[in-house]
Amino acid sequence: MEETQKPFRTIAILGLGLIGGSLAKAARAKKACDAIVGWSHHDESRELALQSKIVDATVDSIEQAIADADLVILCTPVNQIAKALTKLGSLIKPGTIVTDVGSTKRTIVKAGEKNIVSPSAFVGSHPMTGSERSGLAASKAELFQDALCLLTPTEQTDKSALARVEEFWQALGCRTSKLGPADHDRLMSDISHLPHALAAALIAMQDDRALAIAGPSFRDLTRIAASDPALWREIFLDNTDSAIRSIDRCVAWLRDFRTALQANDGGKLETMLTASSKRRQSMTRTS
Amino acid sequence: MEETQKPFRTIAILGLGLIGGSLAKAARAKKACDAIVGWSHHDESRELALQSKIVDATVDSIEQAIADADLVILCTPVNQIAKALTKLGSLIKPGTIVTDVGSTKRTIVKAGEKNIVSPSAFVGSHPMTGSERSGLAASKAELFQDALCLLTPTEQTDKSALARVEEFWQALGCRTSKLGPADHDRLMSDISHLPHALAAALIAMQDDRALAIAGPSFRDLTRIAASDPALWREIFLDNTDSAIRSIDRCVAWLRDFRTALQANDGGKLETMLTASSKRRQSMTRTS
Repeated sequence: MEETQKPFRTIAILGLGLIGGSLAKAARAKKACDAIVGWSHHDESRELALQSKIVDATVDSIEQAIADADLVILCTPVNQIAKALTKLGSLIKPGTIVTDVGSTKRTIVKAGEKNIVSPSAFVGSHPMTGSERSGLAASKAELFQDALCLLTPTEQTDKSALARVEEFWQALGCRTSKLGPADHDRLMSDISHLPHALAAALIAMQDDRALAIAGPSFRDLTRIAASDPALWREIFLDNTDSAIRSIDRCVAWLRDFRTALQANDGGKLETMLTASSKRRQSMTRTS
Repeated sequence: MEETQKPFRTIAILGLGLIGGSLAKAARAKKACDAIVGWSHHDESRELALQSKIVDATVDSIEQAIADADLVILCTPVNQIAKALTKLGSLIKPGTIVTDVGSTKRTIVKAGEKNIVSPSAFVGSHPMTGSERSGLAASKAELFQDALCLLTPTEQTDKSALARVEEFWQALGCRTSKLGPADHDRLMSDISHLPHALAAALIAMQDDRALAIAGPSFRDLTRIAASDPALWREIFLDNTDSAIRSIDRCVAWLRDFRTALQANDGGKLETMLTASSKRRQSMTRTS
């Protein structure tokens, strides 16, 4: 019986949180590589990953982690990904492909392209998946199944490396799509970072009596507000211009709606609500 | 075998949409009454309700609907509830209890107390349940199970009628809680009407490319934006002062967050996100 060629032999996962841990579990479950080496700066995460056989080996330095890897995946918070890319620049071996899972892409892709150069290659990735939970204990192999993974190549991106990274994500169960880093950061701000800010605002403004009677619908709507504040601080700090534009456009709509409320203008209120209702219903058809 | 006394003999449900239909199904499933008479101004809804045996009888006038009822439940859009109460005033028989399911309460309770007077009685109710779907076809008996039903008595409310209406909702599987109509409208604006406006804003401000890559999390967050715009126009029109206050408080938080973004103030961003994250996590424990 002939075995199908796996996308990669050894992958190094740097950062063993929710995404890194889930990635290791998925890569093993889907047979996307022969071996997985894990690195984390948290001793407990390394121990747990090894004990629960999420990875084949753990190492306590980035140097050791990448020694045998033909794919390195950076799964730390976004600000640490850019820093790690600088460090990796002098260590990376010829032929190794480096990618990441960061939720923002301009800064990371810039750092990747500056430091990881031919005959190595950097490809920016963003698997759009996650949870309001964080940490290795919350990781699961199914996290990537049917999720959309955005790849953010530029003119500098090695086409062969891009194709291999895309194949890897598809092997994990992801759908893939490509767009530039700047487009990525703008669109993500609108559909992910802004909703996060709105959920946080919606929780912050409530009084205790209101929260006490809030039902399952309110809890669903605000679940993302429970996410790790330190992770989200870095996402917002790395995408401030987009986040400001997103907030301004949302507030502009709310201001129009407020004007219609103040004028008791039922026609205007209905027009605004109808436009959103129709648009949301057209999404459901494909969801 | 002795049968347990049912809360009511005959209930009249005026309005056979999602809530009215679900109410009929739940009342039957939970044996909360002996007979159910349904009225709708839509011929199709009356026919469907009768054919599918959701109600025992349908009638085409409010007069006929309330002729034998000891409980009348108004399940039309909020603006029509207030109108129906005015009409019911001259028709209602001694001893009949009238309640409603409106999402706003000040206007309705005022109309109820003006028109439904001793020896009849009005009690304001708001079962906090629903769906982005609407209409009789979407109705289901389970809609009230474990939902919170808010009762909005005032100093004028007949205590015995209040107790019987509360017993009725509990028989349907609801938890119940009491608060005044003004408090109700203020709190509902914060936890229900504002989230609806935010979801509509979040859909309206997206461009097509963003919607095309939006994932399941975004679809969950914006599902309520697909609700019936005409129903929500009336809810907002009946609670404009509260809605304006809710929007202003939410926008004030967003403005602070925007200021922190513009200043690249990671400390402030994290403080704001942490407060909401902790508060949301404390909710999850009880949900």
